[in-house]
Amino acid sequence: MSDDAVFEFLHSEVINYFVSRNEDQNTEGKDEDLSTIEYMGFSTGYRIIERLTKEMPRFKDELDTMKFICTDFWSAIYKKQIDNLRTNHQGVYVLQDNSFRFLTKLSNGKQYLEVAPRFAAFTCGVIRGSLANLGIASLVTSEVLNMPSCKFHIQVQRT
Amino acid sequence: MSDDAVFEFLHSEVINYFVSRNEDQNTEGKDEDLSTIEYMGFSTGYRIIERLTKEMPRFKDELDTMKFICTDFWSAIYKKQIDNLRTNHQGVYVLQDNSFRFLTKLSNGKQYLEVAPRFAAFTCGVIRGSLANLGIASLVTSEVLNMPSCKFHIQVQRT
Repeated sequence: MSDDAVFEFLHSEVINYFVSRNEDQNTEGKDEDLSTIEYMGFSTGYRIIERLTKEMPRFKDELDTMKFICTDFWSAIYKKQIDNLRTNHQGVYVLQDNSFRFLTKLSNGKQYLEVAPRFAAFTCGVIRGSLANLGIASLVTSEVLNMPSCKFHIQVQRT
Repeated sequence: MSDDAVFEFLHSEVINYFVSRNEDQNTEGKDEDLSTIEYMGFSTGYRIIERLTKEMPRFKDELDTMKFICTDFWSAIYKKQIDNLRTNHQGVYVLQDNSFRFLTKLSNGKQYLEVAPRFAAFTCGVIRGSLANLGIASLVTSEVLNMPSCKFHIQVQRT
Protein backbone atom coordinates (compact mmCIF):
# COMPACT_ATOMS: atom_id res chain seq x y z
CA MET A 1 0.00 0.00 0.00
CA SER A 2 1.33 3.41 -0.86
CA ASP A 3 2.25 5.41 2.20
CA ASP A 4 -0.18 8.15 1.56
CA ALA A 5 -3.24 6.16 0.62
CA VAL A 6 -4.53 7.18 4.05
CA PHE A 7 -4.48 10.80 2.91
CA GLU A 8 -6.61 9.88 -0.12
CA PHE A 9 -9.03 7.90 2.03
CA LEU A 10 -9.42 10.72 4.52
CA HIS A 11 -9.87 13.23 1.69
CA SER A 12 -12.62 11.11 0.25
CA GLU A 13 -14.32 10.74 3.65
CA VAL A 14 -14.32 14.52 4.04
CA ILE A 15 -16.00 14.87 0.65
CA ASN A 16 -18.54 12.15 1.48
CA TYR A 17 -19.41 13.87 4.71
CA PHE A 18 -20.02 17.31 3.25
CA VAL A 19 -21.75 16.04 0.14
CA SER A 20 -24.21 13.97 2.14
CA ARG A 21 -24.78 16.88 4.52
CA ASN A 22 -25.52 19.08 1.51
CA GLU A 23 -28.02 16.54 0.26
CA ASP A 24 -29.77 16.53 3.61
CA GLN A 25 -30.10 20.29 3.66
CA ASN A 26 -30.70 21.00 0.02
CA THR A 27 -33.88 19.96 -1.68
CA GLU A 28 -33.99 22.78 -4.21
CA GLY A 29 -31.32 21.56 -6.60
CA LYS A 30 -28.93 24.38 -5.83
CA ASP A 31 -25.25 24.03 -6.61
CA GLU A 32 -23.36 22.05 -4.06
CA ASP A 33 -21.79 24.03 -1.28
CA LEU A 34 -18.15 23.02 -1.36
CA SER A 35 -16.91 26.06 0.55
CA THR A 36 -16.02 24.18 3.73
CA ILE A 37 -13.94 21.66 1.82
CA GLU A 38 -12.28 24.55 0.00
CA TYR A 39 -11.51 26.21 3.31
CA MET A 40 -9.96 23.04 4.74
CA GLY A 41 -7.76 23.04 1.65
CA PHE A 42 -6.88 26.68 2.22
CA SER A 43 -5.61 26.01 5.76
CA THR A 44 -3.77 22.91 4.65
CA GLY A 45 -2.06 24.69 1.73
CA TYR A 46 -1.19 27.62 3.96
CA ARG A 47 0.63 25.34 6.38
CA ILE A 48 2.31 23.11 3.82
CA ILE A 49 3.90 25.96 1.88
CA GLU A 50 5.08 27.49 5.13
CA ARG A 51 6.94 24.34 5.95
CA LEU A 52 8.29 23.89 2.42
CA THR A 53 9.61 27.44 2.01
CA LYS A 54 10.86 27.94 5.55
CA GLU A 55 14.51 27.96 4.62
CA MET A 56 14.26 29.25 1.09
CA PRO A 57 15.07 32.72 -0.21
CA ARG A 58 12.10 34.84 -1.34
CA PHE A 59 10.73 34.18 -4.78
CA LYS A 60 11.86 36.55 -7.52
CA ASP A 61 8.39 37.35 -8.76
CA GLU A 62 4.88 35.98 -9.19
CA LEU A 63 5.80 33.69 -12.06
CA ASP A 64 8.70 32.30 -10.06
CA THR A 65 6.24 31.54 -7.24
CA MET A 66 3.86 29.79 -9.63
CA LYS A 67 6.67 27.64 -10.96
CA PHE A 68 7.43 26.50 -7.42
CA ILE A 69 3.75 25.65 -6.89
CA CYS A 70 3.82 23.58 -10.09
CA THR A 71 6.94 21.63 -9.17
CA ASP A 72 8.09 21.13 -5.57
CA PHE A 73 4.82 22.06 -3.94
CA TRP A 74 2.68 19.91 -6.23
CA SER A 75 5.04 16.96 -5.87
CA ALA A 76 4.87 17.15 -2.09
CA ILE A 77 1.10 16.69 -2.13
CA TYR A 78 0.22 14.98 -5.38
CA LYS A 79 3.39 12.94 -6.05
CA LYS A 80 3.85 14.46 -9.51
CA GLN A 81 4.42 17.85 -11.07
CA ILE A 82 1.90 20.00 -12.94
CA ASP A 83 2.11 19.08 -16.63
CA ASN A 84 1.45 22.48 -18.12
CA LEU A 85 1.54 26.08 -16.87
CA ARG A 86 0.12 28.93 -18.94
CA THR A 87 -0.23 32.59 -18.13
CA ASN A 88 -1.48 35.72 -19.85
CA HIS A 89 1.14 37.69 -17.91
CA GLN A 90 -1.68 39.75 -16.44
CA GLY A 91 -2.43 37.77 -13.36
CA VAL A 92 -4.14 34.73 -14.85
CA TYR A 93 -2.45 31.35 -14.55
CA VAL A 94 -3.72 27.99 -15.72
CA LEU A 95 -2.20 24.88 -14.18
CA GLN A 96 -2.98 21.62 -15.90
CA ASP A 97 -2.52 18.23 -14.25
CA ASN A 98 -3.11 15.46 -16.78
CA SER A 99 -3.43 12.81 -14.12
CA PHE A 100 -4.86 14.51 -11.07
CA ARG A 101 -4.47 12.29 -8.04
CA PHE A 102 -8.00 12.63 -6.75
CA LEU A 103 -9.53 11.80 -10.12
CA THR A 104 -7.43 8.84 -11.19
CA LYS A 105 -9.74 6.38 -9.45
CA LEU A 106 -12.86 7.63 -11.22
CA SER A 107 -13.74 6.57 -14.75
CA ASN A 108 -14.48 9.01 -17.53
CA GLY A 109 -18.25 8.72 -17.66
CA LYS A 110 -20.50 11.75 -17.90
CA GLN A 111 -21.96 11.06 -14.49
CA TYR A 112 -18.50 11.44 -13.01
CA LEU A 113 -17.81 14.70 -14.79
CA GLU A 114 -20.72 16.21 -12.92
CA VAL A 115 -19.25 15.34 -9.55
CA ALA A 116 -15.67 16.17 -10.45
CA PRO A 117 -15.79 19.62 -8.78
CA ARG A 118 -16.11 17.82 -5.43
CA PHE A 119 -12.74 16.22 -5.97
CA ALA A 120 -11.07 19.47 -6.96
CA ALA A 121 -12.51 21.78 -4.29
CA PHE A 122 -9.97 20.88 -1.61
CA THR A 123 -7.14 21.47 -4.07
CA CYS A 124 -8.51 24.86 -5.20
CA GLY A 125 -8.26 25.79 -1.53
CA VAL A 126 -4.77 24.33 -1.24
CA ILE A 127 -3.54 26.55 -4.08
CA ARG A 128 -5.30 29.64 -2.75
CA GLY A 129 -3.92 29.03 0.77
CA SER A 130 -0.37 28.50 -0.40
CA LEU A 131 -0.43 31.71 -2.46
CA ALA A 132 -2.03 33.63 0.41
CA ASN A 133 0.83 32.59 2.67
CA LEU A 134 3.24 34.04 0.10
CA GLY A 135 1.34 37.31 -0.04
CA ILE A 136 -0.63 36.67 -3.22
CA ALA A 137 -4.42 36.98 -2.95
CA SER A 138 -6.22 34.96 -5.59
CA LEU A 139 -9.37 33.26 -6.79
CA VAL A 140 -8.92 29.63 -7.80
CA THR A 141 -11.41 27.57 -9.79
CA SER A 142 -11.20 24.15 -11.39
CA GLU A 143 -12.23 22.72 -14.73
CA VAL A 144 -12.44 19.05 -15.61
CA LEU A 145 -13.02 18.18 -19.26
CA ASN A 146 -11.57 14.70 -19.45
CA MET A 147 -10.81 12.45 -16.52
CA PRO A 148 -8.38 12.35 -14.89
CA SER A 149 -7.14 15.64 -16.29
CA CYS A 150 -7.85 18.80 -14.33
CA LYS A 151 -7.16 22.50 -14.92
CA PHE A 152 -6.84 25.00 -12.11
CA HIS A 153 -7.46 28.63 -13.02
CA ILE A 154 -5.78 31.17 -10.80
CA GLN A 155 -6.84 34.80 -10.98
CA VAL A 156 -4.52 36.97 -8.93
CA GLN A 157 -6.37 39.74 -7.09
CA ARG A 158 -4.55 43.05 -7.48
CA THR A 159 -5.22 45.66 -4.82
CA MET B 1 8.88 17.61 4.29
CA SER B 2 7.72 14.13 5.07
CA ASP B 3 5.47 12.67 2.41
CA ASP B 4 2.52 12.29 4.64
CA ALA B 5 2.56 15.60 6.44
CA VAL B 6 -0.43 16.45 4.26
CA PHE B 7 -2.35 13.65 5.95
CA GLU B 8 -1.54 15.15 9.36
CA PHE B 9 -2.55 18.62 8.22
CA LEU B 10 -5.84 17.40 6.80
CA HIS B 11 -6.52 15.38 9.95
CA SER B 12 -5.97 18.47 12.05
CA GLU B 13 -8.26 20.56 9.80
CA VAL B 14 -11.00 17.99 10.21
CA ILE B 15 -10.64 18.22 13.99
CA ASN B 16 -10.61 22.03 13.89
CA TYR B 17 -13.76 22.07 11.83
CA PHE B 18 -15.79 19.78 14.07
CA VAL B 19 -14.49 21.23 17.30
CA SER B 20 -15.37 24.77 16.28
CA ARG B 21 -18.76 23.60 15.04
CA ASN B 22 -19.32 21.95 18.42
CA GLU B 23 -18.45 25.19 20.15
CA ASP B 24 -20.96 27.07 18.04
CA GLN B 25 -23.73 24.65 18.89
CA ASN B 26 -22.91 23.84 22.46
CA THR B 27 -23.20 26.41 25.19
CA GLU B 28 -24.03 24.02 27.99
CA GLY B 29 -20.60 22.56 28.60
CA LYS B 30 -21.52 19.09 27.40
CA ASP B 31 -18.85 16.67 26.33
CA GLU B 32 -17.59 17.27 22.86
CA ASP B 33 -19.31 15.35 20.13
CA LEU B 34 -16.52 13.55 18.33
CA SER B 35 -18.74 10.96 16.72
CA THR B 36 -18.43 12.32 13.18
CA ILE B 37 -14.64 12.27 13.38
CA GLU B 38 -14.84 8.76 14.77
CA TYR B 39 -17.05 7.71 11.88
CA MET B 40 -14.65 9.16 9.31
CA GLY B 41 -11.98 7.05 10.98
CA PHE B 42 -14.24 4.00 10.82
CA SER B 43 -14.68 4.31 7.04
CA THR B 44 -11.00 5.00 6.54
CA GLY B 45 -9.91 2.02 8.63
CA TYR B 46 -12.44 -0.20 6.89
CA ARG B 47 -10.95 0.63 3.50
CA ILE B 48 -7.30 0.54 4.53
CA ILE B 49 -7.47 -2.93 6.05
CA GLU B 50 -9.32 -4.15 2.99
CA ARG B 51 -6.48 -3.08 0.80
CA LEU B 52 -3.80 -4.37 3.16
CA THR B 53 -5.28 -7.84 3.62
CA LYS B 54 -6.53 -8.36 0.07
CA GLU B 55 -4.05 -11.06 -0.79
CA MET B 56 -3.45 -12.47 2.64
CA PRO B 57 -4.77 -15.72 4.08
CA ARG B 58 -7.38 -15.41 6.85
CA PHE B 59 -6.15 -14.70 10.34
CA LYS B 60 -5.87 -17.67 12.66
CA ASP B 61 -7.85 -16.11 15.48
CA GLU B 62 -8.71 -12.84 17.18
CA LEU B 63 -5.29 -12.43 18.79
CA ASP B 64 -3.61 -13.02 15.46
CA THR B 65 -5.78 -10.26 13.97
CA MET B 66 -4.85 -7.88 16.78
CA LYS B 67 -1.17 -8.56 16.23
CA PHE B 68 -1.57 -7.58 12.59
CA ILE B 69 -3.33 -4.35 13.65
CA CYS B 70 -0.42 -3.58 15.97
CA THR B 71 2.28 -4.17 13.37
CA ASP B 72 1.64 -3.87 9.63
CA PHE B 73 -1.61 -1.97 9.90
CA TRP B 74 -0.31 0.54 12.43
CA SER B 75 2.88 1.08 10.45
CA ALA B 76 0.92 1.81 7.27
CA ILE B 77 -0.88 4.70 8.95
CA TYR B 78 1.28 5.83 11.84
CA LYS B 79 4.77 4.97 10.58
CA LYS B 80 5.58 2.91 13.64
CA GLN B 81 4.30 -0.18 15.41
CA ILE B 82 2.27 -0.34 18.60
CA ASP B 83 4.68 -0.56 21.52
CA ASN B 84 2.65 -2.79 23.77
CA LEU B 85 -0.31 -5.12 23.39
CA ARG B 86 -2.12 -6.58 26.37
CA THR B 87 -5.18 -8.74 26.58
CA ASN B 88 -7.25 -10.45 29.28
CA HIS B 89 -7.98 -13.23 26.77
CA GLN B 90 -11.68 -12.46 27.22
CA GLY B 91 -12.16 -9.94 24.48
CA VAL B 92 -10.37 -6.92 25.96
CA TYR B 93 -7.24 -5.65 24.24
CA VAL B 94 -5.14 -2.65 25.16
CA LEU B 95 -2.84 -1.20 22.52
CA GLN B 96 -0.27 1.29 23.72
CA ASP B 97 1.54 3.67 21.40
CA ASN B 98 4.26 5.52 23.30
CA SER B 99 4.68 8.13 20.63
CA PHE B 100 1.31 8.52 18.99
CA ARG B 101 1.67 10.41 15.75
CA PHE B 102 -1.19 12.85 16.30
CA LEU B 103 0.05 13.80 19.76
CA THR B 104 3.76 14.24 19.13
CA LYS B 105 3.33 17.90 18.19
CA LEU B 106 1.52 18.79 21.42
CA SER B 107 3.36 19.43 24.64
CA ASN B 108 2.56 17.68 27.88
CA GLY B 109 0.65 20.43 29.66
CA LYS B 110 -2.58 19.77 31.51
CA GLN B 111 -4.50 21.95 29.07
CA TYR B 112 -3.48 19.60 26.29
CA LEU B 113 -4.48 16.49 28.17
CA GLU B 114 -8.03 17.79 28.18
CA VAL B 115 -8.14 18.07 24.41
CA ALA B 116 -6.26 14.85 23.71
CA PRO B 117 -9.46 12.86 23.01
CA ARG B 118 -9.94 14.99 19.90
CA PHE B 119 -6.70 13.71 18.50
CA ALA B 120 -7.49 10.09 19.25
CA ALA B 121 -11.12 9.98 18.05
CA PHE B 122 -10.30 9.42 14.40
CA THR B 123 -7.96 6.58 15.35
CA CYS B 124 -10.53 4.91 17.62
CA GLY B 125 -12.69 4.82 14.52
CA VAL B 126 -9.86 3.51 12.38
CA ILE B 127 -9.37 0.55 14.72
CA ARG B 128 -13.09 -0.15 14.99
CA GLY B 129 -13.49 0.03 11.19
CA SER B 130 -10.59 -2.24 10.48
CA LEU B 131 -11.87 -4.87 12.92
CA ALA B 132 -15.40 -4.56 11.54
CA ASN B 133 -14.09 -5.33 8.08
CA LEU B 134 -12.53 -8.49 9.50
CA GLY B 135 -15.79 -9.53 11.13
CA ILE B 136 -15.03 -8.38 14.67
CA ALA B 137 -17.52 -5.96 16.22
CA SER B 138 -15.96 -3.83 18.94
CA LEU B 139 -16.04 -0.71 21.06
CA VAL B 140 -12.85 1.32 21.03
CA THR B 141 -11.94 4.07 23.47
CA SER B 142 -8.75 6.02 24.07
CA GLU B 143 -6.83 7.06 27.15
CA VAL B 144 -4.02 9.60 27.29
CA LEU B 145 -2.11 9.89 30.54
CA ASN B 146 1.18 11.30 29.35
CA MET B 147 1.80 12.97 26.02
CA PRO B 148 2.54 11.69 23.47
CA SER B 149 1.62 8.25 24.76
CA CYS B 150 -1.85 6.90 24.03
CA LYS B 151 -3.71 3.72 24.95
CA PHE B 152 -6.52 2.30 22.87
CA HIS B 153 -8.94 -0.01 24.67
CA ILE B 154 -10.73 -2.50 22.48
CA GLN B 155 -13.74 -4.35 23.84
CA VAL B 156 -14.83 -7.08 21.45
CA GLN B 157 -18.61 -7.39 21.26
CA ARG B 158 -19.64 -11.03 21.42
CA THR B 159 -23.00 -11.87 19.93
